Formats: sequence, C-alpha cells, structure tokens
Amino acid sequence: MGSWTTVLMASEGQLIERVARNLPSQAGAGLRVGIGDDAAVIRPRAGLEWVFTTDAFLENVHFLPRMHAPEGVGYKALARATSDLAAMGARPRYFLLSLALPPSCTGKWFDRFLKGMSRAARSFGLVLAGGDTTRNPEAAINLTVIGEVVPGRAVLRSGARPGDIICVSGTLGEAELGLRLLQRGLPVRRKWQGLLHKHFYPEPRLALGAWLARNRRATAMIDTSDGLSTDLGHLCAASGLGAKVWAAKIPKVALPSDLQKLGLDPLQLALDGGEDYELLFTVSRRQARHLPRVVRGVPITVIGEVTRNKRILLIDDAGRTKTLRAQGWDPFRKRGNSKRA
Amino acid sequence: MGSWTTVLMASEGQLIERVARNLPSQAGAGLRVGIGDDAAVIRPRAGLEWVFTTDAFLENVHFLPRMHAPEGVGYKALARATSDLAAMGARPRYFLLSLALPPSCTGKWFDRFLKGMSRAARSFGLVLAGGDTTRNPEAAINLTVIGEVVPGRAVLRSGARPGDIICVSGTLGEAELGLRLLQRGLPVRRKWQGLLHKHFYPEPRLALGAWLARNRRATAMIDTSDGLSTDLGHLCAASGLGAKVWAAKIPKVALPSDLQKLGLDPLQLALDGGEDYELLFTVSRRQARHLPRVVRGVPITVIGEVTRNKRILLIDDAGRTKTLRAQGWDPFRKRGNSKRA
Repeated sequence: MGSWTTVLMASEGQLIERVARNLPSQAGAGLRVGIGDDAAVIRPRAGLEWVFTTDAFLENVHFLPRMHAPEGVGYKALARATSDLAAMGARPRYFLLSLALPPSCTGKWFDRFLKGMSRAARSFGLVLAGGDTTRNPEAAINLTVIGEVVPGRAVLRSGARPGDIICVSGTLGEAELGLRLLQRGLPVRRKWQGLLHKHFYPEPRLALGAWLARNRRATAMIDTSDGLSTDLGHLCAASGLGAKVWAAKIPKVALPSDLQKLGLDPLQLALDGGEDYELLFTVSRRQARHLPRVVRGVPITVIGEVTRNKRILLIDDAGRTKTLRAQGWDPFRKRGNSKRA
Repeated sequence: MGSWTTVLMASEGQLIERVARNLPSQAGAGLRVGIGDDAAVIRPRAGLEWVFTTDAFLENVHFLPRMHAPEGVGYKALARATSDLAAMGARPRYFLLSLALPPSCTGKWFDRFLKGMSRAARSFGLVLAGGDTTRNPEAAINLTVIGEVVPGRAVLRSGARPGDIICVSGTLGEAELGLRLLQRGLPVRRKWQGLLHKHFYPEPRLALGAWLARNRRATAMIDTSDGLSTDLGHLCAASGLGAKVWAAKIPKVALPSDLQKLGLDPLQLALDGGEDYELLFTVSRRQARHLPRVVRGVPITVIGEVTRNKRILLIDDAGRTKTLRAQGWDPFRKRGNSKRA
C-alpha cells in the first residue's frame, strides 16, 4: 500500500485523536471510561448477558488495496464482526479497534477508512470503547464487538433437533458473484455496479437475529460467512445432527442474462460462496408453520430439514440425493484461489 | 516464517481443536458459551464493572522469529494485553484470541506458542472465551482481555492532582537492556541469560494494581509499556498536569561490570526503554506517608511529584533541571530503530 518512507508520518497520539473525532466514541451511560486510557470501563446493564466476538480483517487476505476503497474496508471490517452478534441474536453495544497500519494508510486513506467504519458503527448502534494502534508494513485490522442479550436467549449453533426446519434469510451467492466479477475486472460497466454491493457493503441481519432470539423462534443459528455448505456443516456438527437440503428451494443469486456466458453456476455460488452474512437457522416444525415470510424487511426461505442421520445431503432438481461437502471458505485449506479477496 | 507451500496444511477446525485442548477454555460459571460458536456469552457477576482492552502482537514488529521462541511469543502477547488491566486495577477474567498465521506456524511452532500462552493464561487467571483464525503470510496475533473491577475503583490516567507523589514499581530499563543484548547477539553467554528474562517474560503487576485500586491508594495509574518518559507524559497529559522527577531516585537497571564497556546508559534505558510493564502511579501526599515499600512482593519507589506546571522535568544528580522529552516507543514516529523487537 505504498512505501514506508515517502509519506508523512503521524504520531500515534494524532491517529487516536482522529479516531475519536470520526467514530462514535463518547463515554456516558454504560461506557464509564472510553478511549484514551489503558482500558475501557463499562457498567453492564442489570439482568443482561454479554456477547463477545473478535475478527481479523487483513490486507491481501480479506481485502486488496487496488480493489477495495478505504470506506468499504472500514465498513466491512466492522460489519463482518458484528454479523457474529446477529447470529447469536444479540444487540451490539461497544467495539474495540486494533489498527496496525503502514504510514501510507495514515493520511487520506485513514480518513476515508474511518468514514466507512463510522457509517457501519452508527448503522449497527456501536460505540467505540477502546483500541490499539501500531505500525505494520501491511494493514492488519482487528475488531472486537460486544453486545448484550436477555439471559438464556442467545441462539447457539448447537440447539437444532431432529425434524427441525432449516431456513435462510435473503439471497445466497450474491457476495461471491460480486467478488467473481471484480476478479474478472468486469465491474467497470455501470449496469453491473449493483451486483457488487453485497460484496462491498454486507448488512448483518441484526434485527432478524434479535427477533428470532427474543421470540424464541430459532433453535440454532449461524451466519453464512464461509458459505452455506460450510456453515450448515458447522451448525450440524455443533448439534450432533445432519441435514437434507433441496437445491431448488435455496434462494440463489440471479445471474443477469448477459453474464450467463461466464460459466458461473448460481447453485454453486449459493452453496460455496462466502461473505453473504445471511442468517442460517433452524426452527421447530410447529414454529415453522407460523413463521412469517418476511421479518423486519428480510425474506426468509425454508430450504431443508434437520436429520438424525449425521450426513448433510443435497437433493437436486431431478430428486437425486448426494452428499453436500463443505467447500466454502477455510483459510487453512489449500484451494486454487488461496485468497478470500 | 517459512514458505506457504512446503508445510503440512491444517484445517481451521483442527487449529481450533488444538487451541481448545491447550488453553484454559472450559465454559462454566460466568462463561455460558465459550469457543466454538459464533460468539462467546458471559453472565456478568452482579455489582461489578467490566474492563476491556485489545492489543496487537505482530511478527517483525513486536517479535522476530529468529530471536523469539514460540513459547515466549505466546506468553508475551497475552502478558502485554493483560498489563493494561493491571494498570486499571482490574482482575482478569476472560480473553479472546485472534490468530492470523502462515502455514509454517500451524505445526510444532503452534504447539509451543500455545504452551507459552497457556502458562500466561493460568498465571493471570484468564479463560479463553472465543477467537478467530485465518491465514496470513506473517503471524498477526490480537488479544482482547476482559476483566472486572468494583464500580468506581478503576484507576484512570486522569486522576492525578498537583502535589501527588509519583511512584513506580520494580526496576526500569530491564526489558530494554535484554532487547539491546539480543540485538547485539550477546545472549549466547549463559551468565547473561538472566538479563533477558524481563524482555521475554514480563510480569503484569496484577496483584499490586488490584491492591492500589481496592484500597484507593492510587489517584492515577498507567503501565510502563512505552517507557517512563513517554508513559509519564501520557499520565500527565490525561490529568492536565506536569511532573518533576529526580534521576537519582529512579530504580534503574543494574549493568554488570563486564557490560559497562558497551556504552549503555542505565538512566537512558530506564527513561526511554519500553516493555517493562511496571506500574507508574500517583498517590496523595498523605497516602504516600503510609505506602509500604513492598506490596505483594513488588518494590515501590518514589521518583517525583506532580506539578501544576504542565512541563515534565528531570532533575539530574547535580541538581540541574531539564525537560524530560517523550522518547519511548511510538510506532508512528520515525526512529533509527523503527522496529520494537
């Protein structure tokens, strides 16, 4: 992202001042001590449980400087981490930001990064409580997000029961389609810009997740960060069960007709494409009958059911059954394309 | 730290299993949901406040693979972050571990890393609550540490008052001396091994910090992570005050006689050397009269006093006064030696 020597150096104190100015970070109410001390101090609200998650967002792994605008980097770093709270049904409250940046990212790039992160923080209801800054040849960002939930209502991966119905929010494969278009250098054409939106600016399904938790609708839940085939595997493994999924029922990304010659398969994008940050959850058969088709503006689709048999099966359009293998994102498994972005 | 291709690949799931096996991470009591779900769920103990901090520990910035054993990397990454809790007087409870590793660090290196981190976690009373793993050409580790404190008792940087006495724990400059010896390739001689201990295995002053907070002894506190000249500046800036420090009173690292020819100045090591992770704190004049010289086995030394005048002054052995400039560690300020390690 530029050289170490030809850029203006900012001091750590100046960087922290810019963070404080640009991100919501006012101490008050629950946040007794915010940024600027050795650690943050928070007074928990009585009668709630706390939910914590931490997530790295790294240059050349999760984003590429030539492909991703700084605003999008700031937004997505926080959105990804916050999606883990959506998957528990928790309400986001505070976050901690650990920034390792090359000097080339401490000028204009940093202002734009903070602008995108601020947009995400305000949209998700997050206040910055603390952080860390250091120098590194490549940008390495780490987010810790803290939320709250009514005791016992957090939705775990492990709560599915045999016979439960499997549902997913939104449309799957959209973020992967955007990434593929970017990788092929296609997005310059304005009419495809809309197809890139979910890759750049995913929306954690916070309102849906909280609704499912509050109303005890979901028995198990996970967000689709790595791809349906991988994330359904995580949910089933945690629950000690298996699943049957109907390919025809999966809400797949729609390919515009003039992109169909690219050889992209909507089903494969939906099964193995990561970073949609939709919610994949199970509901009891009884609850499934009363489940709205749209909650807080987000469509919900039934795609399969939980089985006692631990295999994960995909039933294709011709009614044939095959094993659905986890082929989504795993950073340590070797793939043709070893980088996420 | 090695090539991307010639090493055995572990899957993300296998790495997480090894983390779970090797670090204290059992759910129970306060930790309702630990590692293995989308996020951790913690039930706060009634009537306490929470203290949070996050800290990056990066290859080639904070440690060098050829110089630092994996056990030490694991230990120190957690010790550094936990020292921020000591500086608030908080009791450590949980931590989140974000790991970005090259495949060369997923084999034997990783086992040794976990061994060192486990030693730190058990020694500080920390339980792993969650984390994140991904792949990166260089190891990038991020720790988030969560502690608790009696409401209102956290000791801030901003609480010093004019006339307060300035104290420091332990000895300053020891970690910097160790680093300098390492950089000169000297540590092979067994008789100097002891001089490296504080650089490799610093001890956060948790018991002292908690004692000072619980008994309301300290009016302001910070840990000496960046060096006395820088950290005293942070404390004074946060309090809106200045300080006078007597050089003769500073508990300086002792240089063995056969190292005196190296041109190292104990006062300079003590003033500007980072990573001692001692506690620098202020107490009222009245409290200072009753302050023990040793608390929980850690010596305490009075080194100066807080002044209304915002300058930070050093009084040398001849009684001359000069401005003490912050020359400790600032990752974004250019120095001859731009790397910490």
